[in-house]
Amino acid sequence: MGKKRAVILASGGLDSCVTAAIANEEYELAFLHLSYGQRTQSRELQAFNSIADHYRAIRRLVVPFSHLSAIGGSSLTDIAVPISRADLTNKEVPTSYVPFRNANMLSVAVSWGEVLGASTIFVGAVQEDSSGYPDCRKEFYDAFNVVIKCGTKPTTELSIVTPLIELSKAEIILRGLALGAPLHLTWSCYQREDVACGVCDSCALRLRGFQSAGVEDPVLYLERPQYMHA
Amino acid sequence: MGKKRAVILASGGLDSCVTAAIANEEYELAFLHLSYGQRTQSRELQAFNSIADHYRAIRRLVVPFSHLSAIGGSSLTDIAVPISRADLTNKEVPTSYVPFRNANMLSVAVSWGEVLGASTIFVGAVQEDSSGYPDCRKEFYDAFNVVIKCGTKPTTELSIVTPLIELSKAEIILRGLALGAPLHLTWSCYQREDVACGVCDSCALRLRGFQSAGVEDPVLYLERPQYMHA
Repeated sequence: MGKKRAVILASGGLDSCVTAAIANEEYELAFLHLSYGQRTQSRELQAFNSIADHYRAIRRLVVPFSHLSAIGGSSLTDIAVPISRADLTNKEVPTSYVPFRNANMLSVAVSWGEVLGASTIFVGAVQEDSSGYPDCRKEFYDAFNVVIKCGTKPTTELSIVTPLIELSKAEIILRGLALGAPLHLTWSCYQREDVACGVCDSCALRLRGFQSAGVEDPVLYLERPQYMHA
Repeated sequence: MGKKRAVILASGGLDSCVTAAIANEEYELAFLHLSYGQRTQSRELQAFNSIADHYRAIRRLVVPFSHLSAIGGSSLTDIAVPISRADLTNKEVPTSYVPFRNANMLSVAVSWGEVLGASTIFVGAVQEDSSGYPDCRKEFYDAFNVVIKCGTKPTTELSIVTPLIELSKAEIILRGLALGAPLHLTWSCYQREDVACGVCDSCALRLRGFQSAGVEDPVLYLERPQYMHA
């Protein structure tokens, strides 16, 4: 009997890479990537493909999701909104929040998963380290699972799992290293595509995580500030 | 003080046209249309624009949603799956079901609505006449409203309303006529773009509705079978 099938939502970043490593233990993985007009989309797509290659994924789907940048409202997709320098003590929703982005992505994953006969959708969402994005919280995924149950065929048994949701970035990194996840292939920076900037929200969370874990980040940075441990 | 703002998900069909007529009484409408690779997409887009013109909508957004046809699994988007002749007594999910389509559409509507500062998203979903689609039921929309609450900014107050959900097609038609909805501009056929076929699920539900209401459908048909009243 073959492995069960799962869809993995893979941005090309650290969290989804470690999630793929976890999912790969038990599932045959179908890799899904959404390009939503974010500034670093070609670099993220390259990371996505390298990670999918690493896991020898036959099924992969890249969806151009240009409407999220047409809609705007985020510094990630709208050049008129500047990317703020990280402030990890700020509790407000940051400018990089893309309105309701994760629901858009999950919906595609469910559509594909239903057609593939997958049982599980893996998402690398992280609550604590999530920079205050409302759609990274556990309650959001719990609510989405109810929508899946109501909105798919009666014979479809499909649900989202978020194995990292309660972990810190340092724990995620250590988990990834233990599973042999190819962290050197990942891309997290919101701002640059050549070397990581080191100062956007995403770089700051990542660097702080590696610093807390006491491990060197294998990715190149323009600047490598020392962040306070959480 | 101006009118409150709402997003209307408008396919170009009868139900969303009547929903627009209802919403137009109280809201300034932003018209949203999704082209998901369905066979009749250019005819539906034409109907969408005619209806949006009728309501003098300044804000309109047309989103190309080609991934739903890439994913496949439906006779609406996949030429390999034939469109079945209507069987209005069949209780199974029909071949025209596009996996989790409505969640994909609602997610875009919420993203746009959040950026526009809208308070409401109007959707012309109909439970009884829905041909057995799981994502046309009231419980699906109730569950989605919970996801919106969890997944948007704390300051966002946005919810989906489905004013037709408990009406029959005949009641919808009569409601539309009472409000002066431009039913002659709508397009419902799943199969043809010149004249409506009269025999696909969507034509059958529409024709049966006009026949029950005792009103002549203003749209041209290739065939106009007499359907049994519900």
